[in-house]
Amino acid sequence: MTGRNLRVNGERLWNRLMEMAEIGATPKGGVCRLTLSDEDKRARDLFAEWCRAAGMTVEVDAMGNMFARRKGRRAGPAIMAGSHLDSQPTGGKFDGALGVLAALEAVETMNDAGIETDYPIEIVNWTNEEGARFAPAMVSSGVYAGAFSLDEAYGFTDKSGATLGQELERIGYKGALPVGGRDWKASFEVHIEQGPILEREGLPVGVVTGVQGIRWYDVIIKGDEVHAGPTPMDRRRDPVRGLHEVLAGCYKAAAEQGEWMRFTVGDLKAQPGSRNTVPGVVSFTVDLRHPQDEVLDGMEQAMREIARKAGDAHNLDITVERIWNSPPVAFDEACIASVETAAQTCGYATRKLFSGAGHDSVYVARVVPTSMIFVTSQNGISHNEAEYSSPEACKAGADVLLHALLDQAGIVGE
Amino acid sequence: MTGRNLRVNGERLWNRLMEMAEIGATPKGGVCRLTLSDEDKRARDLFAEWCRAAGMTVEVDAMGNMFARRKGRRAGPAIMAGSHLDSQPTGGKFDGALGVLAALEAVETMNDAGIETDYPIEIVNWTNEEGARFAPAMVSSGVYAGAFSLDEAYGFTDKSGATLGQELERIGYKGALPVGGRDWKASFEVHIEQGPILEREGLPVGVVTGVQGIRWYDVIIKGDEVHAGPTPMDRRRDPVRGLHEVLAGCYKAAAEQGEWMRFTVGDLKAQPGSRNTVPGVVSFTVDLRHPQDEVLDGMEQAMREIARKAGDAHNLDITVERIWNSPPVAFDEACIASVETAAQTCGYATRKLFSGAGHDSVYVARVVPTSMIFVTSQNGISHNEAEYSSPEACKAGADVLLHALLDQAGIVGE
Repeated sequence: MTGRNLRVNGERLWNRLMEMAEIGATPKGGVCRLTLSDEDKRARDLFAEWCRAAGMTVEVDAMGNMFARRKGRRAGPAIMAGSHLDSQPTGGKFDGALGVLAALEAVETMNDAGIETDYPIEIVNWTNEEGARFAPAMVSSGVYAGAFSLDEAYGFTDKSGATLGQELERIGYKGALPVGGRDWKASFEVHIEQGPILEREGLPVGVVTGVQGIRWYDVIIKGDEVHAGPTPMDRRRDPVRGLHEVLAGCYKAAAEQGEWMRFTVGDLKAQPGSRNTVPGVVSFTVDLRHPQDEVLDGMEQAMREIARKAGDAHNLDITVERIWNSPPVAFDEACIASVETAAQTCGYATRKLFSGAGHDSVYVARVVPTSMIFVTSQNGISHNEAEYSSPEACKAGADVLLHALLDQAGIVGE
Repeated sequence: MTGRNLRVNGERLWNRLMEMAEIGATPKGGVCRLTLSDEDKRARDLFAEWCRAAGMTVEVDAMGNMFARRKGRRAGPAIMAGSHLDSQPTGGKFDGALGVLAALEAVETMNDAGIETDYPIEIVNWTNEEGARFAPAMVSSGVYAGAFSLDEAYGFTDKSGATLGQELERIGYKGALPVGGRDWKASFEVHIEQGPILEREGLPVGVVTGVQGIRWYDVIIKGDEVHAGPTPMDRRRDPVRGLHEVLAGCYKAAAEQGEWMRFTVGDLKAQPGSRNTVPGVVSFTVDLRHPQDEVLDGMEQAMREIARKAGDAHNLDITVERIWNSPPVAFDEACIASVETAAQTCGYATRKLFSGAGHDSVYVARVVPTSMIFVTSQNGISHNEAEYSSPEACKAGADVLLHALLDQAGIVGE
């Protein structure tokens, strides 16, 4: 068999996806594998075991990022493929895990075929891509690319008060290697689309040309805690009154920015949160996405103006704090071409598209030529226990990754 | 000194209020003494110690309600005065504690003056008035009056999953006495107004003639959990979109019901509560109050209609569940007269008013002739660490209680 006809073992890939999904499995068929939890440790251990069994060496850096390496004829640079094994609190089986295990499957396929590559292959499992336990998301690829300092990342705190640094040590994944500066020539990431476009067009895989800009905000509305009964409505400083006006204004403003704007309030809460007390504080999070920075600027300005007006109208103190900004990204032309060619080689119909979600590849693209491969996902649902990509779709993603890797790494003797 | 000229020791009352407020004291000068917590146990122990030192016997029933008894010339029935020692999570020093300690101060004053009453006096500390830890509020006076069964009350669960019954046992306050059926002739409760009326009119105390009706609801809005990035806004089933429309509608409907309507959203939350996931579920609580049942009926109907429309408009499942209903209450004419006469005896300017908040007296009034005495509270603020009633106002409340008790209990030899 020549390299061109090579295909991955779809059954082995699927079985490993299912075995990995048992770690942190939820009753509704999803996965809860929060970063640096006991479940995350078990997932990491299993991944390392599989990589070693496939003849790879495994190293860990000071952010807990795992690097599994398959030797090439040359010492370096390596061709990298990676994603993440952590999940949302009620996440699915495929988000992250597919990218890591498709890369492992590509290596297994090379092993089975006795292929030696010119350049080495490295598979990466990035720590805390989701940001669900420690905000913001994509922290470790961010440290890798210089977007955050190591100390800053160690200090991120979860709801219980534990820091990322403490939890890395607790599960035994604070490695000795420095974070960043590995010798890489190109980078690829297979991921489920998490959106409806490929499914709607009947395509198994997509060629990703870039990623939307993402901004995260904390909105805090302060009023006065008073008893629910005696205080007349017009004498209250009730943050919930401000809340509904700010939300209504933001949804309206988002709709005015056209179909590519995404405005999401993922979390909201009241303090002290007692039934018979007007809350003193109501807070909520905003996740804002759009492919153009100037549109994000306009939406941010609109949000601040809406908050100011609602605060004035109801005598409330409303603050809008931007806590994270990930500008729009354009991927590398040569890597995009490798993915496109690989899809053609395998005979998969495909299209170019833009990622609406953030991925580790956003940060990686700052320091290494990068592209991504999207796999069709049922109903575009993700960050949900019902998330699903078929065995055929997962296999197609791994096939395309295999050939993109071989294109960049080169087969010795071909 | 004749009974008519008798006044309480305001300094002793104030010192005890301050000593009690040290149990569960918060940095901002308030109190966090959630029912059946370790702090609640310490407050109960201190109260029992003070009562025994004042020559009273202390008994506990199966709901943890505490009964401190001062003998009368007759065996019974007793004249009761009570309130509660539990607090909101960020509550004040006076809500509840004043009613219990004013009653103790009245007894101490009788002791100091060597007064024997014809009927006995009983001071009650009711378990879980606030409902902040175990909903609903006023549970133990409710069991006393037959509004809940004992088993039902034991099963109420806090956020951590602990039941009321378990926690009663844990702190050692599940007493042997049956709940209910004590031999009482009349009942009084001193309480801070928790509203602005007395302060606005410059009155130290008020005569309470009844209590507003109170209804509690859980509103649950169900949509679909999806990733914040890729899913277009018009393909989402986003519960936050429903939330702001329902809230806007409810505030508008509440305003249409006139100045006595109180609509409060005390708690709200999103599930799973992750920044980059559209929540699958958003839920909030509603506390509704008005002196007329038919107006509450109208508002409830309006809420259901608003929820139905918002659900239809945004393809969301919205449920409005009423979890508690406390109808409006009219207090006993003779007890109201005792309070009015007591205020005149002491020379305090006063007025009749209606309570906007629920109190244990609402349930007690179902089985015993009852009235309440309100004490002016600064800015009408309560359920807040800034809650404040002056030493003079607290003393005035205790003076009026003393004379209402003496009026009903009768002084031997006068």
